[in-house]
Amino acid sequence: MRQYPLPASLEPLGALVRVEMAGVCGTDIHLWKGQLPIPRPNILGHETVGRVERLGDSLKQDWTGLPLQVGDRVTWSSSLACGQCFYCREKRQPTRCLNRKAYGISYNCEEPPHCNGGYAEYIYLRPGSAIFKLPEDLSTERVIGAGCALVTAIHGIERMGIDWHDVVVIQGAGPVGLAALAVALDHGASQAIVIGGPEHRLQTARTFGSNECISIDEVSHGQDRVERVRQLTRGFGADVVIECVGLPEAVPEGLEMCRDGARFLVLGHYGDAGPVLLNPHHITRKQLVVYGSWGSEPRHMRQALEFLQARGDRFPFEDLVTHRFPLEKTTEALETTARWKSTKSVVVPGMGK
Amino acid sequence: MRQYPLPASLEPLGALVRVEMAGVCGTDIHLWKGQLPIPRPNILGHETVGRVERLGDSLKQDWTGLPLQVGDRVTWSSSLACGQCFYCREKRQPTRCLNRKAYGISYNCEEPPHCNGGYAEYIYLRPGSAIFKLPEDLSTERVIGAGCALVTAIHGIERMGIDWHDVVVIQGAGPVGLAALAVALDHGASQAIVIGGPEHRLQTARTFGSNECISIDEVSHGQDRVERVRQLTRGFGADVVIECVGLPEAVPEGLEMCRDGARFLVLGHYGDAGPVLLNPHHITRKQLVVYGSWGSEPRHMRQALEFLQARGDRFPFEDLVTHRFPLEKTTEALETTARWKSTKSVVVPGMGK
Amino acid sequence: MRQYPLPASLEPLGALVRVEMAGVCGTDIHLWKGQLPIPRPNILGHETVGRVERLGDSLKQDWTGLPLQVGDRVTWSSSLACGQCFYCREKRQPTRCLNRKAYGISYNCEEPPHCNGGYAEYIYLRPGSAIFKLPEDLSTERVIGAGCALVTAIHGIERMGIDWHDVVVIQGAGPVGLAALAVALDHGASQAIVIGGPEHRLQTARTFGSNECISIDEVSHGQDRVERVRQLTRGFGADVVIECVGLPEAVPEGLEMCRDGARFLVLGHYGDAGPVLLNPHHITRKQLVVYGSWGSEPRHMRQALEFLQARGDRFPFEDLVTHRFPLEKTTEALETTARWKSTKSVVVPGMGK
Amino acid sequence: MRQYPLPASLEPLGALVRVEMAGVCGTDIHLWKGQLPIPRPNILGHETVGRVERLGDSLKQDWTGLPLQVGDRVTWSSSLACGQCFYCREKRQPTRCLNRKAYGISYNCEEPPHCNGGYAEYIYLRPGSAIFKLPEDLSTERVIGAGCALVTAIHGIERMGIDWHDVVVIQGAGPVGLAALAVALDHGASQAIVIGGPEHRLQTARTFGSNECISIDEVSHGQDRVERVRQLTRGFGADVVIECVGLPEAVPEGLEMCRDGARFLVLGHYGDAGPVLLNPHHITRKQLVVYGSWGSEPRHMRQALEFLQARGDRFPFEDLVTHRFPLEKTTEALETTARWKSTKSVVVPGMGK
Repeated sequence: MRQYPLPASLEPLGALVRVEMAGVCGTDIHLWKGQLPIPRPNILGHETVGRVERLGDSLKQDWTGLPLQVGDRVTWSSSLACGQCFYCREKRQPTRCLNRKAYGISYNCEEPPHCNGGYAEYIYLRPGSAIFKLPEDLSTERVIGAGCALVTAIHGIERMGIDWHDVVVIQGAGPVGLAALAVALDHGASQAIVIGGPEHRLQTARTFGSNECISIDEVSHGQDRVERVRQLTRGFGADVVIECVGLPEAVPEGLEMCRDGARFLVLGHYGDAGPVLLNPHHITRKQLVVYGSWGSEPRHMRQALEFLQARGDRFPFEDLVTHRFPLEKTTEALETTARWKSTKSVVVPGMGK
Repeated sequence: MRQYPLPASLEPLGALVRVEMAGVCGTDIHLWKGQLPIPRPNILGHETVGRVERLGDSLKQDWTGLPLQVGDRVTWSSSLACGQCFYCREKRQPTRCLNRKAYGISYNCEEPPHCNGGYAEYIYLRPGSAIFKLPEDLSTERVIGAGCALVTAIHGIERMGIDWHDVVVIQGAGPVGLAALAVALDHGASQAIVIGGPEHRLQTARTFGSNECISIDEVSHGQDRVERVRQLTRGFGADVVIECVGLPEAVPEGLEMCRDGARFLVLGHYGDAGPVLLNPHHITRKQLVVYGSWGSEPRHMRQALEFLQARGDRFPFEDLVTHRFPLEKTTEALETTARWKSTKSVVVPGMGK
Repeated sequence: MRQYPLPASLEPLGALVRVEMAGVCGTDIHLWKGQLPIPRPNILGHETVGRVERLGDSLKQDWTGLPLQVGDRVTWSSSLACGQCFYCREKRQPTRCLNRKAYGISYNCEEPPHCNGGYAEYIYLRPGSAIFKLPEDLSTERVIGAGCALVTAIHGIERMGIDWHDVVVIQGAGPVGLAALAVALDHGASQAIVIGGPEHRLQTARTFGSNECISIDEVSHGQDRVERVRQLTRGFGADVVIECVGLPEAVPEGLEMCRDGARFLVLGHYGDAGPVLLNPHHITRKQLVVYGSWGSEPRHMRQALEFLQARGDRFPFEDLVTHRFPLEKTTEALETTARWKSTKSVVVPGMGK
Repeated sequence: MRQYPLPASLEPLGALVRVEMAGVCGTDIHLWKGQLPIPRPNILGHETVGRVERLGDSLKQDWTGLPLQVGDRVTWSSSLACGQCFYCREKRQPTRCLNRKAYGISYNCEEPPHCNGGYAEYIYLRPGSAIFKLPEDLSTERVIGAGCALVTAIHGIERMGIDWHDVVVIQGAGPVGLAALAVALDHGASQAIVIGGPEHRLQTARTFGSNECISIDEVSHGQDRVERVRQLTRGFGADVVIECVGLPEAVPEGLEMCRDGARFLVLGHYGDAGPVLLNPHHITRKQLVVYGSWGSEPRHMRQALEFLQARGDRFPFEDLVTHRFPLEKTTEALETTARWKSTKSVVVPGMGK
């Protein structure tokens, strides 16, 4: 725990927010363990809800045009794109912005304005941040329960497309897999098969409406899982397979679950877990299409928030929040997630105060 | 050389064709060497032009509706789809038809009607074959010079899409690479870079209009070729990369030539040349899309023939036919292709008679 | 009522079916009143469920590959495409087949095999018909309640696309409008607004899940309906508007309900109700896209049947069947539909026997 | 002619440009005649090339990242989008920006900074303008000859898509029609038919590579033109029709030139020329898709400039500039265009000095 001064004055389009809850994401574990190159020291935490404490003089509206005031409960896109580089301008792919920064990842907290991550009492939102005022009937728990997994799934599925009536297989039942399941079902998937574990996560998948769950504890061999998927899909395999695991060997296994002409989304490989043997002939012969997708844009956050508000009955993401920790126990929160003991751990700075 | 009887009578929708010219395709080399499982003995040859010798009673029109008569010069799609299976009906992907057959590949020539391949004096076209009458001003050499490479490239590029103004890299300068180059340029690619060899093939690529050729003889290290592509593309890499090589290591090399958000087409892996190490994290982080494509449909043959007729001045595919052999020397034709000595070898049954 | 002989023998791929129920569609009213040119006399009825009475020797499977036997309950696509014309082959648009025929529409019943429509005790299904065996748990009422409206909506929405999270307006609350509503909701529309009447149809729309209904009885001026839509859509208009009315003036009204850049589907104009004044400048300035769609393909029927089976709880199409008539009272069934007194009238040949 | 003071100081991201050439566009005629509502008085001219006279302190690069200096020859996108409204942010349609402004159209020249249009000695480019440095080998005449017609055509065709091998009809042979022709040919259209006049414009269409021209002087009845298109397209009509005329009656005529399933782009209706009778039944029955498109984005200007540089030999847009006028004779330039006497009139402020 370190203490930093709050900014004495705000930039005209900046905002200071008091953190109410911050989620622990799988990427945080990689960052925490030093498996990804980031500036250090660093205040982690890129899934955050808080209350506006102070507003810059010119910041009058949230990203959607709603009036913004001190005291409003808000969340925001964790990343900022420059809007001016090759990818932002010419290719309209701001998630690959050459100057992209992300709260909880890209900033050294020794440098002002210091407060750049969610695992803290306050966070300073720089000019250009995409801030979203939360409606009263959308709980903080649901927003953090969905976390960056939901916007990641929305972006990835937007890129790949799920056609109405598609048969979808989802590899992985963690936050990204469950978010992909919810979004796939809401696209009108005719069948959604989830492969993962442990059992409490599969139970959530069933609550969300998966037609079938394949437990990796019960069906421990990949080839048996492939066989099971084929049995469930008239022998052909799925129209769409979404990888939400992050282990390289999930990719060839998932490709085998594809019918000819299927689409495959590599969604779980935010960390670099190394290469795997793949046979290009299979991609040619089966006429597959393999998609990658990185992060999300502010418009996906807007969609996510409306989705959480409108479909909360069907997809109660707040139930993913299984473990809560005060700010002093952030390390414990990270450990709990690292050990797969929680579905979702969260840090609550005001807890017990 | 074996002798088989011609069919005594034709089915109402069958046709007997006297072969004028048959091309040797890279796949023929794999088949000839026994690297792919096919019935044996087998009359190879799936790129063929001939003259109609006899017509079934009910066969009045070619695939496009033109009247068909004895004496007409024709070509045809090498493969037949059933029109009734899951892939033909529900998924509209006849190239993955569960009952697909191909002339020159799928038939044991010991079984009637015997004449099922192009390396022969006659070939029998079964009911359901997609036959195309050739216009007078479209030479046999140009059709065979383009061969199955052109329809393969048309189908693959249809699946992936080349956007107008895209920067395109083509790995490989054999028949598939040259066909992909022609089709990419005709799509309005703003820049087309060909990587391959030997020099006489690169010369054809230049004739077709490639903006830049990278010789694998001169730039023999993959990483240097990647670097060269980046230099030619403002440092970012290409919008589209088309693999037309068939060696697994071309795939990771090509993926490195992609800008973030690029599309990559695995077009050269008709044979199973084994797996290669690929890193799924790169697909996620760079937001790539990787496409496979298999064979072609009759409508691609129609497009190919019109393209060859209309754009012959710009893309003189007849120049690819560098070596001609009489039927007795078919083995020599295969050897010449296997040794990369020709751009395209062809068998001419009537040669020297 | 006329009597015709049943066919003495069946073609190898033909089938004779005893009709259980046949729906009355809006198009039937146009046909009945002589507003569309068809052969006469004509047995109408193109939405039909029946039991297989006799099977041709070679007809062993339904369109999806399931075994087919005497006694099976079946439905079928009302139209047959030739598979060989310009539209079938080159443009893959069999709904615009140059030789298209439809049961209940295209055949003069004076000519053998006579039994070509649903309003009869038997119907003869010609070779090439797309027959679907119905699962036990899918009721005849639900299939006929959905009728050709559902496959029409599925095809139209496939052509236009509904993006996940789109705001959708549906003009019309008849069978096509209700089917479009169900399919739009199942695509993940974030908001679905139905405009129509009378009240009992709007009640069904609410049951299906529409977020808002605008009654044309209560809001009788078009401009007021446009204003209401804008109020419901942050002032911008909808992402997607689907016209399911059939009156020309619905089109300019619907175009005004579009936000800039929206898509508009003209789905209700099966009959020629004449022209309407439209301003091309509005299409340019608002960057609209206007889609047409005609009929459906067998693969849409397959999707429809699976959808009805899987989503029956959410969309109880059987409730649309409000009026039943024996075969002798078919004229009364047509009159009931013509007068908008029913949501859906059906003919039940075995009724009261 | 009025005199206004140049700005005393520039905003950090503003620039002052000395005008070299400004094109007269058809829209200018509508603006000049008062047919569109704009602030008055107004310095018209939205197609301009000039030299940088002064640069704001922070303006170091052009839109593509090239260094920008005093003396550079530049052009720019005529319109500015806010980047923050519903259309800019959520719908990614900046051409429909709620706060859009355009040089030569949106500004009252009585208000500072006064110099907001191309028909002047100087123009002031505000912060956020998309400025493009012109390469040496791209002539001012070619850029102005292409004018806003080219970026308009690029945007419209991007929205609609032209598939490789499509048969394309272009209604109109003015600047927009000729630009659409060039872009369509470069997309790989298999056939391009231009309908228009007068003869000197058709001659340019032939130079660009149109396969066939239909003169409206020779074929003066719409139905005869429809018939001629059918004759040229195997009786079916075109895959794609692009309206570049601006007269409402061109739309129903063009729709008749469509094959079933075709796409139609309403590109010429920038002015409001009133409504026309259209039959929605034809859109449904023929399964058409009708697109609108408005203006262009900076990325289209970048594509246009690269296209003009790379394809200048094939499409010599400089030849469209048929009439030049000094600044004092701007009214004459407008009159010449209004009377269809020029292909393209331009204003050259430095002419004769």
